[in-house]
Amino acid sequence: MTRVAFQGELGAFSQVAAAQLAGNRFTPVPLPAFDAVFAALANGKCDKAVIPIENTLHGSVHENYDLLLRFDSNIQGETFVRIVHNVIAPPGVGFHRIRRIYSHPVALNQCRKFFEKHGKIEQVPFYDTAGSVKMIMRDSLRDAGAIASAAAADQYGAVILRKSIEDDPENFTRFFLLASGINKAKTQKRDPRKRYKTSLVFTTRNVPGALFRSVSAFALRDLNLTKIESRPLRGKPWEYLFYLDFIGHVDDPPCRNALNHLAELADMLKVLGCYPAA
Amino acid sequence: MTRVAFQGELGAFSQVAAAQLAGNRFTPVPLPAFDAVFAALANGKCDKAVIPIENTLHGSVHENYDLLLRFDSNIQGETFVRIVHNVIAPPGVGFHRIRRIYSHPVALNQCRKFFEKHGKIEQVPFYDTAGSVKMIMRDSLRDAGAIASAAAADQYGAVILRKSIEDDPENFTRFFLLASGINKAKTQKRDPRKRYKTSLVFTTRNVPGALFRSVSAFALRDLNLTKIESRPLRGKPWEYLFYLDFIGHVDDPPCRNALNHLAELADMLKVLGCYPAA
Repeated sequence: MTRVAFQGELGAFSQVAAAQLAGNRFTPVPLPAFDAVFAALANGKCDKAVIPIENTLHGSVHENYDLLLRFDSNIQGETFVRIVHNVIAPPGVGFHRIRRIYSHPVALNQCRKFFEKHGKIEQVPFYDTAGSVKMIMRDSLRDAGAIASAAAADQYGAVILRKSIEDDPENFTRFFLLASGINKAKTQKRDPRKRYKTSLVFTTRNVPGALFRSVSAFALRDLNLTKIESRPLRGKPWEYLFYLDFIGHVDDPPCRNALNHLAELADMLKVLGCYPAA
Repeated sequence: MTRVAFQGELGAFSQVAAAQLAGNRFTPVPLPAFDAVFAALANGKCDKAVIPIENTLHGSVHENYDLLLRFDSNIQGETFVRIVHNVIAPPGVGFHRIRRIYSHPVALNQCRKFFEKHGKIEQVPFYDTAGSVKMIMRDSLRDAGAIASAAAADQYGAVILRKSIEDDPENFTRFFLLASGINKAKTQKRDPRKRYKTSLVFTTRNVPGALFRSVSAFALRDLNLTKIESRPLRGKPWEYLFYLDFIGHVDDPPCRNALNHLAELADMLKVLGCYPAA
Protein backbone atom coordinates (compact mmCIF):
# COMPACT_ATOMS: atom_id res chain seq x y z
CA MET A 1 0.00 0.00 0.00
CA THR A 2 1.20 3.56 -0.73
CA ARG A 3 2.95 5.06 2.28
CA VAL A 4 1.98 8.74 2.68
CA ALA A 5 4.01 10.92 5.06
CA PHE A 6 2.65 14.07 6.75
CA GLN A 7 3.46 16.29 9.71
CA GLY A 8 1.45 15.67 12.89
CA GLU A 9 -0.18 12.81 14.77
CA LEU A 10 -2.53 10.24 13.24
CA GLY A 11 -5.83 12.03 12.64
CA ALA A 12 -4.19 15.36 11.75
CA PHE A 13 -5.86 17.57 9.14
CA SER A 14 -2.98 16.58 6.82
CA GLN A 15 -4.22 12.99 7.03
CA VAL A 16 -7.69 14.17 6.01
CA ALA A 17 -6.05 15.87 3.01
CA ALA A 18 -4.09 12.67 2.26
CA ALA A 19 -7.35 10.69 2.12
CA GLN A 20 -8.78 13.25 -0.34
CA LEU A 21 -5.64 13.11 -2.48
CA ALA A 22 -4.51 9.49 -2.32
CA GLY A 23 -7.79 7.64 -1.69
CA ASN A 24 -8.62 5.93 1.58
CA ARG A 25 -6.27 3.00 1.06
CA PHE A 26 -2.83 4.23 2.14
CA THR A 27 -0.45 3.68 5.03
CA PRO A 28 -0.18 6.93 7.01
CA VAL A 29 3.37 7.88 8.05
CA PRO A 30 3.00 10.58 10.77
CA LEU A 31 6.20 12.59 11.37
CA PRO A 32 7.02 15.36 13.86
CA ALA A 33 8.20 18.08 11.44
CA PHE A 34 7.94 19.28 7.84
CA ASP A 35 11.64 18.76 7.05
CA ALA A 36 11.33 15.16 8.28
CA VAL A 37 8.47 14.69 5.77
CA PHE A 38 10.61 15.93 2.87
CA ALA A 39 13.59 13.83 4.06
CA ALA A 40 11.38 10.70 4.24
CA LEU A 41 10.28 11.32 0.65
CA ALA A 42 13.88 11.83 -0.52
CA ASN A 43 15.12 8.70 1.33
CA GLY A 44 12.34 6.50 0.02
CA LYS A 45 10.90 5.97 3.52
CA CYS A 46 7.53 6.93 2.05
CA ASP A 47 6.06 6.99 -1.47
CA LYS A 48 4.17 10.27 -1.28
CA ALA A 49 3.90 13.22 1.09
CA VAL A 50 1.12 15.67 1.93
CA ILE A 51 1.95 19.19 3.11
CA PRO A 52 -0.16 22.28 3.90
CA ILE A 53 0.82 25.19 1.63
CA GLU A 54 -1.63 27.97 2.52
CA ASN A 55 -4.55 28.74 4.79
CA THR A 56 -7.36 31.24 4.25
CA LEU A 57 -6.78 32.85 7.69
CA HIS A 58 -3.03 32.43 8.17
CA GLY A 59 -1.51 32.79 4.69
CA SER A 60 1.18 30.82 2.87
CA VAL A 61 3.38 28.33 4.71
CA HIS A 62 6.75 29.79 3.69
CA GLU A 63 8.60 26.98 5.48
CA ASN A 64 7.13 24.46 3.02
CA TYR A 65 7.89 26.67 0.00
CA ASP A 66 11.50 26.77 1.26
CA LEU A 67 11.54 22.97 1.53
CA LEU A 68 10.06 22.64 -1.98
CA LEU A 69 13.06 24.63 -3.22
CA ARG A 70 15.61 22.69 -1.15
CA PHE A 71 14.37 19.17 -1.90
CA ASP A 72 13.87 17.59 -5.30
CA SER A 73 10.15 16.74 -5.07
CA ASN A 74 7.29 17.47 -7.42
CA ILE A 75 3.65 18.37 -6.86
CA GLN A 76 1.17 15.80 -8.16
CA GLY A 77 -2.08 17.17 -6.77
CA GLU A 78 -3.80 19.78 -4.63
CA THR A 79 -6.84 19.74 -2.37
CA PHE A 80 -8.67 22.03 0.02
CA VAL A 81 -9.73 20.89 3.50
CA ARG A 82 -12.22 22.87 5.53
CA ILE A 83 -10.84 23.17 9.05
CA VAL A 84 -13.74 21.97 11.21
CA HIS A 85 -13.13 21.91 14.96
CA ASN A 86 -15.13 19.49 17.15
CA VAL A 87 -15.35 18.86 20.89
CA ILE A 88 -14.23 15.25 21.33
CA ALA A 89 -14.24 13.06 24.46
CA PRO A 90 -13.79 9.40 25.45
CA PRO A 91 -16.98 7.29 24.97
CA GLY A 92 -19.34 7.62 27.93
CA VAL A 93 -18.21 11.10 28.92
CA GLY A 94 -21.17 13.50 28.55
CA PHE A 95 -20.74 17.13 27.54
CA HIS A 96 -21.94 18.39 30.97
CA ARG A 97 -19.00 16.58 32.63
CA ILE A 98 -16.34 18.39 30.58
CA ARG A 99 -14.36 20.76 32.84
CA ARG A 100 -11.36 21.42 30.54
CA ILE A 101 -10.55 21.08 26.85
CA TYR A 102 -7.12 20.36 25.38
CA SER A 103 -5.95 21.50 21.94
CA HIS A 104 -3.34 23.42 20.00
CA PRO A 105 -3.54 27.13 20.95
CA VAL A 106 -4.31 28.12 17.35
CA ALA A 107 -7.35 25.79 17.39
CA LEU A 108 -8.46 27.02 20.85
CA ASN A 109 -8.19 30.58 19.57
CA GLN A 110 -10.36 29.74 16.55
CA CYS A 111 -13.19 28.65 18.92
CA ARG A 112 -13.43 31.77 21.05
CA LYS A 113 -17.22 32.12 20.79
CA PHE A 114 -17.65 28.56 22.08
CA PHE A 115 -15.51 29.30 25.16
CA GLU A 116 -17.31 32.60 25.77
CA LYS A 117 -20.61 30.69 25.80
CA HIS A 118 -19.20 27.96 28.06
CA GLY A 119 -17.22 30.19 30.41
CA LYS A 120 -16.66 27.46 33.02
CA ILE A 121 -14.72 25.19 30.66
CA GLU A 122 -10.98 25.69 31.01
CA GLN A 123 -8.79 25.87 27.85
CA VAL A 124 -5.59 23.83 28.11
CA PRO A 125 -2.95 24.36 25.39
CA PHE A 126 -1.48 21.17 23.93
CA TYR A 127 1.19 20.54 21.27
CA ASP A 128 -1.19 19.14 18.62
CA THR A 129 -4.95 18.89 17.91
CA ALA A 130 -5.04 15.14 17.10
CA GLY A 131 -2.39 14.56 19.81
CA SER A 132 -4.81 15.97 22.40
CA VAL A 133 -7.43 13.34 21.44
CA LYS A 134 -4.75 10.64 21.64
CA MET A 135 -3.82 11.81 25.16
CA ILE A 136 -7.36 12.05 26.63
CA MET A 137 -8.03 8.51 25.31
CA ARG A 138 -4.71 7.07 26.54
CA ASP A 139 -5.25 8.57 30.01
CA SER A 140 -9.02 7.78 29.97
CA LEU A 141 -9.85 11.26 31.24
CA ARG A 142 -13.45 11.47 32.51
CA ASP A 143 -13.81 15.27 32.83
CA ALA A 144 -11.81 16.50 29.83
CA GLY A 145 -12.25 16.91 26.09
CA ALA A 146 -10.15 17.81 23.09
CA ILE A 147 -10.69 20.00 20.02
CA ALA A 148 -9.69 18.27 16.79
CA SER A 149 -10.89 16.90 13.43
CA ALA A 150 -13.56 14.20 13.08
CA ALA A 151 -10.75 12.04 11.68
CA ALA A 152 -8.92 12.29 15.02
CA ALA A 153 -12.06 11.13 16.89
CA ASP A 154 -12.28 8.16 14.48
CA GLN A 155 -8.59 7.38 14.78
CA TYR A 156 -8.60 7.02 18.57
CA GLY A 157 -12.15 5.70 19.05
CA ALA A 158 -13.37 8.87 20.73
CA VAL A 159 -16.78 10.51 20.38
CA ILE A 160 -17.77 13.90 18.95
CA LEU A 161 -19.87 15.83 21.50
CA ARG A 162 -20.17 19.16 19.66
CA LYS A 163 -19.63 19.58 15.92
CA SER A 164 -18.09 22.49 14.06
CA ILE A 165 -17.53 24.92 16.93
CA GLU A 166 -15.06 27.15 15.00
CA ASP A 167 -15.84 30.89 14.86
CA ASP A 168 -15.11 31.30 11.16
CA PRO A 169 -16.44 28.73 8.68
CA GLU A 170 -14.25 30.26 5.93
CA ASN A 171 -11.19 28.47 7.31
CA PHE A 172 -9.67 26.31 4.56
CA THR A 173 -6.21 24.88 4.13
CA ARG A 174 -4.74 24.03 0.73
CA PHE A 175 -2.54 20.91 0.65
CA PHE A 176 -0.11 19.54 -1.94
CA LEU A 177 0.46 15.87 -2.72
CA LEU A 178 4.17 15.37 -3.41
CA ALA A 179 6.15 12.62 -5.10
CA SER A 180 9.90 12.28 -5.07
CA GLY A 181 11.70 14.21 -7.81
CA ILE A 182 13.26 10.96 -9.02
CA ASN A 183 9.85 9.98 -10.36
CA LYS A 184 9.63 13.15 -12.42
CA ALA A 185 10.47 11.22 -15.62
CA LYS A 186 7.47 8.94 -15.31
CA THR A 187 5.11 11.91 -15.21
CA GLN A 188 1.47 11.20 -14.44
CA LYS A 189 -0.63 10.51 -17.53
CA ARG A 190 -2.47 13.61 -18.63
CA ASP A 191 -6.24 13.36 -18.29
CA PRO A 192 -7.84 15.38 -21.14
CA ARG A 193 -11.03 15.95 -19.10
CA LYS A 194 -9.13 17.71 -16.33
CA ARG A 195 -8.02 21.31 -15.91
CA TYR A 196 -4.33 21.50 -14.95
CA LYS A 197 -2.50 23.96 -12.77
CA THR A 198 1.24 24.67 -12.73
CA SER A 199 3.12 26.01 -9.67
CA LEU A 200 6.49 27.70 -9.80
CA VAL A 201 8.91 29.85 -7.82
CA PHE A 202 11.15 32.51 -9.34
CA THR A 203 13.39 35.40 -8.29
CA THR A 204 13.95 38.74 -10.00
CA ARG A 205 16.10 41.69 -9.17
CA ASN A 206 13.91 44.37 -7.63
CA VAL A 207 14.11 46.84 -10.52
CA PRO A 208 10.95 48.84 -11.25
CA GLY A 209 8.83 46.86 -13.66
CA ALA A 210 10.51 43.48 -13.06
CA LEU A 211 7.27 41.98 -11.76
CA PHE A 212 5.30 43.63 -14.57
CA ARG A 213 7.54 42.02 -17.20
CA SER A 214 7.32 38.64 -15.43
CA VAL A 215 3.52 38.77 -15.29
CA SER A 216 3.44 39.85 -18.95
CA ALA A 217 4.94 36.46 -19.95
CA PHE A 218 1.56 35.00 -18.93
CA ALA A 219 -0.76 37.89 -19.86
CA LEU A 220 0.57 38.05 -23.44
CA ARG A 221 -0.52 34.40 -23.87
CA ASP A 222 -3.92 34.85 -22.17
CA LEU A 223 -2.90 32.51 -19.33
CA ASN A 224 -4.77 32.95 -16.10
CA LEU A 225 -2.85 33.34 -12.83
CA THR A 226 -4.51 31.87 -9.73
CA LYS A 227 -1.82 32.90 -7.25
CA ILE A 228 0.98 35.39 -7.06
CA GLU A 229 2.88 36.26 -3.93
CA SER A 230 6.10 38.17 -3.42
CA ARG A 231 8.45 37.43 -0.60
CA PRO A 232 11.41 39.64 0.25
CA LEU A 233 14.69 37.69 0.42
CA ARG A 234 16.22 38.68 3.74
CA GLY A 235 19.94 39.27 3.57
CA LYS A 236 19.47 40.27 -0.09
CA PRO A 237 17.52 43.47 0.46
CA TRP A 238 16.74 44.19 -3.19
CA GLU A 239 15.81 40.73 -4.32
CA TYR A 240 12.42 39.10 -4.31
CA LEU A 241 11.11 35.59 -4.52
CA PHE A 242 7.72 35.03 -6.16
CA TYR A 243 5.28 32.15 -5.84
CA LEU A 244 3.09 31.87 -8.94
CA ASP A 245 0.37 29.41 -10.00
CA PHE A 246 -1.33 29.48 -13.40
CA ILE A 247 -3.99 27.44 -15.16
CA GLY A 248 -2.43 25.29 -17.87
CA HIS A 249 -0.31 22.21 -18.52
CA VAL A 250 3.44 22.55 -19.05
CA ASP A 251 3.11 20.55 -22.29
CA ASP A 252 0.73 23.10 -23.87
CA PRO A 253 2.67 25.35 -26.28
CA PRO A 254 1.45 28.68 -24.77
CA CYS A 255 2.49 27.47 -21.30
CA ARG A 256 5.87 26.25 -22.54
CA ASN A 257 6.44 29.58 -24.28
CA ALA A 258 5.43 31.54 -21.19
CA LEU A 259 7.88 29.52 -19.07
CA ASN A 260 10.69 30.10 -21.59
CA HIS A 261 9.86 33.82 -21.61
CA LEU A 262 9.87 33.95 -17.80
CA ALA A 263 13.20 32.07 -17.72
CA GLU A 264 14.73 34.92 -19.77
CA LEU A 265 13.60 37.48 -17.18
CA ALA A 266 14.14 35.59 -13.95
CA ASP A 267 17.41 35.03 -12.09
CA MET A 268 16.10 31.66 -10.85
CA LEU A 269 13.04 29.69 -11.94
CA LYS A 270 11.86 26.34 -10.60
CA VAL A 271 8.69 24.59 -11.72
CA LEU A 272 7.37 22.83 -8.62
CA GLY A 273 4.80 20.70 -10.44
CA CYS A 274 1.91 20.43 -12.89
CA TYR A 275 -1.23 18.76 -11.52
CA PRO A 276 -5.03 18.60 -11.85
CA ALA A 277 -6.61 21.73 -10.32
CA ALA A 278 -8.82 20.99 -7.29
CA MET B 1 1.08 59.11 27.65
CA THR B 2 0.09 57.43 24.37
CA ARG B 3 -1.88 54.22 24.97
CA VAL B 4 -0.79 51.52 22.51
CA ALA B 5 -2.93 48.37 22.20
CA PHE B 6 -1.60 45.01 20.98
CA GLN B 7 -2.59 41.35 21.09
CA GLY B 8 -0.88 39.25 23.77
CA GLU B 9 0.46 39.57 27.29
CA LEU B 10 2.83 42.29 28.51
CA GLY B 11 6.24 41.45 27.04
CA ALA B 12 4.82 40.08 23.78
CA PHE B 13 6.79 40.57 20.56
CA SER B 14 4.10 43.11 19.59
CA GLN B 15 5.16 45.21 22.56
CA VAL B 16 8.76 45.08 21.32
CA ALA B 17 7.46 46.35 17.97
CA ALA B 18 5.45 49.05 19.75
CA ALA B 19 8.63 50.31 21.47
CA GLN B 20 10.36 50.48 18.06
CA LEU B 21 7.41 52.33 16.53
CA ALA B 22 6.12 54.58 19.30
CA GLY B 23 9.26 55.16 21.40
CA ASN B 24 9.74 53.76 24.89
CA ARG B 25 7.33 56.14 26.59
CA PHE B 26 3.88 54.64 26.05
CA THR B 27 1.24 52.88 28.09
CA PRO B 28 0.90 49.29 26.86
CA VAL B 29 -2.67 48.02 26.47
CA PRO B 30 -2.43 44.20 26.18
CA LEU B 31 -5.59 42.57 24.75
CA PRO B 32 -6.53 38.92 24.15
CA ALA B 33 -7.37 39.06 20.42
CA PHE B 34 -6.76 41.06 17.23
CA ASP B 35 -10.39 42.13 16.82
CA ALA B 36 -10.32 43.49 20.37
CA VAL B 37 -7.28 45.59 19.39
CA PHE B 38 -9.12 47.10 16.39
CA ALA B 39 -12.25 47.66 18.50
CA ALA B 40 -10.20 49.46 21.20
CA LEU B 41 -8.77 51.76 18.52
CA ALA B 42 -12.24 52.46 17.09
CA ASN B 43 -13.75 53.13 20.54
CA GLY B 44 -10.95 55.44 21.64
CA LYS B 45 -9.84 53.04 24.40
CA CYS B 46 -6.32 53.39 23.02
CA ASP B 47 -4.56 56.00 20.86
CA LYS B 48 -2.56 53.65 18.62
CA ALA B 49 -2.39 49.94 17.91
CA VAL B 50 0.41 47.62 16.80
CA ILE B 51 -0.37 44.48 14.80
CA PRO B 52 1.78 41.80 13.11
CA ILE B 53 1.12 41.70 9.35
CA GLU B 54 3.57 39.11 7.99
CA ASN B 55 6.32 36.76 9.13
CA THR B 56 9.26 35.46 7.11
CA LEU B 57 8.46 31.83 8.02
CA HIS B 58 4.67 31.88 8.32
CA GLY B 59 3.46 34.35 5.69
CA SER B 60 0.87 37.13 5.83
CA VAL B 61 -1.59 37.43 8.70
CA HIS B 62 -4.80 37.40 6.64
CA GLU B 63 -6.89 37.92 9.79
CA ASN B 64 -5.32 41.36 10.27
CA TYR B 65 -5.74 42.28 6.59
CA ASP B 66 -9.43 41.40 7.02
CA LEU B 67 -9.66 43.63 10.09
CA LEU B 68 -7.88 46.48 8.22
CA LEU B 69 -10.70 46.25 5.65
CA ARG B 70 -13.47 46.04 8.26
CA PHE B 71 -12.31 48.84 10.56
CA ASP B 72 -11.58 52.43 9.65
CA SER B 73 -7.94 52.64 10.74
CA ASN B 74 -4.84 53.86 8.93
CA ILE B 75 -1.24 52.70 8.91
CA GLN B 76 1.24 55.25 10.25
CA GLY B 77 4.41 53.17 10.36
CA GLU B 78 6.03 49.78 9.89
CA THR B 79 8.87 47.96 11.63
CA PHE B 80 10.59 44.57 11.57
CA VAL B 81 11.27 42.60 14.75
CA ARG B 82 13.65 39.66 14.78
CA ILE B 83 11.98 36.84 16.67
CA VAL B 84 14.64 35.84 19.23
CA HIS B 85 13.69 33.04 21.62
CA ASN B 86 15.38 32.83 25.03
CA VAL B 87 15.24 30.36 27.92
CA ILE B 88 13.94 32.37 30.85
CA ALA B 89 13.58 31.40 34.54
CA PRO B 90 12.90 33.00 37.93
CA PRO B 91 16.01 34.59 39.51
CA GLY B 92 18.12 32.02 41.39
CA VAL B 93 17.05 29.06 39.23
CA GLY B 94 20.13 27.67 37.43
CA PHE B 95 19.93 26.13 33.97
CA HIS B 96 20.88 22.65 35.30
CA ARG B 97 17.74 22.67 37.49
CA ILE B 98 15.35 23.18 34.55
CA ARG B 99 13.27 20.02 34.00
CA ARG B 100 10.54 21.49 31.78
CA ILE B 101 10.04 24.56 29.62
CA TYR B 102 6.71 26.30 28.90
CA SER B 103 5.92 28.24 25.75
CA HIS B 104 3.56 28.62 22.79
CA PRO B 105 3.84 25.48 20.59
CA VAL B 106 4.95 27.57 17.60
CA ALA B 107 7.88 28.90 19.67
CA LEU B 108 8.72 25.42 21.03
CA ASN B 109 8.71 24.13 17.47
CA GLN B 110 11.12 26.88 16.39
CA CYS B 111 13.67 25.66 18.98
CA ARG B 112 13.87 22.00 17.98
CA LYS B 113 17.69 21.82 17.90
CA PHE B 114 17.84 23.10 21.48
CA PHE B 115 15.44 20.38 22.67
CA GLU B 116 17.32 17.70 20.71
CA LYS B 117 20.53 18.76 22.48
CA HIS B 118 18.79 18.85 25.88
CA GLY B 119 16.72 15.69 25.52
CA LYS B 120 15.80 15.48 29.21
CA ILE B 121 14.00 18.83 29.27
CA GLU B 122 10.27 18.40 28.75
CA GLN B 123 8.38 20.78 26.42
CA VAL B 124 5.10 22.05 27.86
CA PRO B 125 2.73 23.90 25.48
CA PHE B 126 1.27 27.13 26.87
CA TYR B 127 -1.16 29.68 25.41
CA ASP B 128 1.38 32.50 25.00
CA THR B 129 5.17 33.06 25.08
CA ALA B 130 5.18 36.07 27.43
CA GLY B 131 2.29 34.48 29.36
CA SER B 132 4.50 31.49 30.16
CA VAL B 133 7.08 33.81 31.80
CA LYS B 134 4.29 35.51 33.75
CA MET B 135 3.10 32.10 35.01
CA ILE B 136 6.49 30.68 36.09
CA MET B 137 7.14 33.93 38.02
CA ARG B 138 3.68 34.05 39.62
CA ASP B 139 3.96 30.41 40.73
CA SER B 140 7.68 30.78 41.64
CA LEU B 141 8.53 27.53 39.85
CA ARG B 142 12.02 26.27 40.82
CA ASP B 143 12.50 23.59 38.14
CA ALA B 144 10.83 25.17 35.11
CA GLY B 145 11.63 27.75 32.47
CA ALA B 146 9.84 29.55 29.65
CA ILE B 147 10.73 30.48 26.09
CA ALA B 148 9.96 34.10 25.25
CA SER B 149 11.40 37.49 24.27
CA ALA B 150 13.98 39.38 26.33
CA ALA B 151 11.21 41.97 26.85
CA ALA B 152 9.10 39.33 28.63
CA ALA B 153 12.02 38.51 30.99
CA ASP B 154 12.33 42.25 31.76
CA GLN B 155 8.60 42.68 32.19
CA TYR B 156 8.25 40.03 34.90
CA GLY B 157 11.70 40.36 36.55
CA ALA B 158 12.88 36.96 35.28
CA VAL B 159 16.36 36.03 34.12
CA ILE B 160 17.63 34.91 30.68
CA LEU B 161 19.56 31.63 31.03
CA ARG B 162 20.17 30.90 27.33
CA LYS B 163 19.98 33.52 24.58
CA SER B 164 18.73 33.12 21.02
CA ILE B 165 18.01 29.39 20.94
CA GLU B 166 15.82 29.55 17.79
CA ASP B 167 16.77 27.22 14.92
CA ASP B 168 16.38 29.82 12.16
CA PRO B 169 17.81 33.33 12.66
CA GLU B 170 15.93 34.52 9.53
CA ASN B 171 12.71 34.76 11.53
CA PHE B 172 11.35 38.30 11.29
CA THR B 173 7.88 39.71 11.80
CA ARG B 174 6.69 42.90 10.15
CA PHE B 175 4.38 45.06 12.28
CA PHE B 176 2.13 48.02 11.47
CA LEU B 177 1.48 51.01 13.72
CA LEU B 178 -2.18 52.02 13.36
CA ALA B 179 -4.10 55.15 14.21
CA SER B 180 -7.85 55.51 14.17
CA GLY B 181 -9.33 56.45 10.80
CA ILE B 182 -10.88 59.55 12.37
CA ASN B 183 -7.40 61.06 12.58
CA LYS B 184 -6.88 60.59 8.85
CA ALA B 185 -7.53 64.28 8.22
CA LYS B 186 -4.63 65.41 10.38
CA THR B 187 -2.17 63.32 8.35
CA GLN B 188 1.34 63.05 9.71
CA LYS B 189 3.66 65.76 8.43
CA ARG B 190 5.70 64.51 5.51
CA ASP B 191 9.42 64.26 6.23
CA PRO B 192 11.31 65.08 2.99
CA ARG B 193 14.34 63.02 4.11
CA LYS B 194 12.26 59.83 4.40
CA ARG B 195 11.26 57.26 1.83
CA TYR B 196 7.51 56.55 1.99
CA LYS B 197 5.59 53.37 1.36
CA THR B 198 1.88 53.02 0.52
CA SER B 199 -0.17 49.90 1.31
CA LEU B 200 -3.47 49.04 -0.35
CA VAL B 201 -5.97 46.25 -0.92
CA PHE B 202 -7.97 45.77 -4.11
CA THR B 203 -10.16 43.19 -5.82
CA THR B 204 -10.46 42.36 -9.51
CA ARG B 205 -12.58 39.91 -11.41
CA ASN B 206 -10.42 36.93 -12.30
CA VAL B 207 -10.28 37.55 -16.05
CA PRO B 208 -7.00 36.71 -17.79
CA GLY B 209 -4.75 39.73 -17.66
CA ALA B 210 -6.60 41.50 -14.81
CA LEU B 211 -3.54 41.34 -12.58
CA PHE B 212 -1.30 42.36 -15.50
CA ARG B 213 -3.36 45.49 -16.11
CA SER B 214 -3.41 46.32 -12.38
CA VAL B 215 0.36 45.99 -12.08
CA SER B 216 0.79 48.09 -15.24
CA ALA B 217 -0.74 51.08 -13.42
CA PHE B 218 2.47 51.14 -11.37
CA ALA B 219 4.97 49.88 -13.98
CA LEU B 220 3.93 52.56 -16.50
CA ARG B 221 4.91 55.19 -13.92
CA ASP B 222 8.19 53.49 -12.87
CA LEU B 223 6.85 52.86 -9.37
CA ASN B 224 8.46 50.04 -7.46
CA LEU B 225 6.29 47.37 -5.83
CA THR B 226 7.63 45.89 -2.59
CA LYS B 227 4.78 43.43 -2.02
CA ILE B 228 2.07 41.78 -4.02
CA GLU B 229 -0.04 38.90 -2.84
CA SER B 230 -3.22 37.40 -4.23
CA ARG B 231 -5.82 35.80 -2.06
CA PRO B 232 -8.75 33.86 -3.44
CA LEU B 233 -12.09 35.11 -2.09
CA ARG B 234 -13.87 31.99 -0.84
CA GLY B 235 -17.53 31.90 -1.71
CA LYS B 236 -16.72 34.05 -4.76
CA PRO B 237 -14.71 31.48 -6.67
CA TRP B 238 -13.58 33.74 -9.50
CA GLU B 239 -12.71 36.81 -7.52
CA TYR B 240 -9.39 37.73 -6.02
CA LEU B 241 -8.20 40.10 -3.37
CA PHE B 242 -4.72 41.59 -3.72
CA TYR B 243 -2.42 43.11 -1.11
CA LEU B 244 0.00 45.56 -2.69
CA ASP B 245 2.71 47.85 -1.28
CA PHE B 246 4.67 50.33 -3.36
CA ILE B 247 7.40 52.89 -2.71
CA GLY B 248 6.00 56.40 -2.93
CA HIS B 249 3.84 58.98 -1.17
CA VAL B 250 0.16 59.32 -2.08
CA ASP B 251 0.70 63.07 -2.59
CA ASP B 252 3.28 62.53 -5.38
CA PRO B 253 1.61 63.00 -8.79
CA PRO B 254 2.81 59.63 -10.26
CA CYS B 255 1.46 57.80 -7.19
CA ARG B 256 -1.84 59.69 -7.34
CA ASN B 257 -2.15 58.89 -11.05
CA ALA B 258 -1.33 55.20 -10.49
CA LEU B 259 -4.01 55.00 -7.77
CA ASN B 260 -6.58 56.65 -10.07
CA HIS B 261 -5.61 54.26 -12.85
CA LEU B 262 -5.93 51.26 -10.51
CA ALA B 263 -9.32 52.53 -9.29
CA GLU B 264 -10.57 52.33 -12.91
CA LEU B 265 -9.59 48.65 -13.12
CA ALA B 266 -10.46 47.42 -9.64
CA ASP B 267 -13.88 46.50 -8.28
CA MET B 268 -12.81 47.67 -4.83
CA LEU B 269 -9.74 49.66 -3.78
CA LYS B 270 -8.81 50.74 -0.26
CA VAL B 271 -5.62 52.60 0.61
CA LEU B 272 -4.63 51.31 4.06
CA GLY B 273 -2.00 53.96 4.73
CA CYS B 274 1.08 55.90 3.61
CA TYR B 275 4.01 55.81 6.03
CA PRO B 276 7.82 56.02 6.25
CA ALA B 277 9.39 52.76 4.99
CA ALA B 278 11.31 50.86 7.69
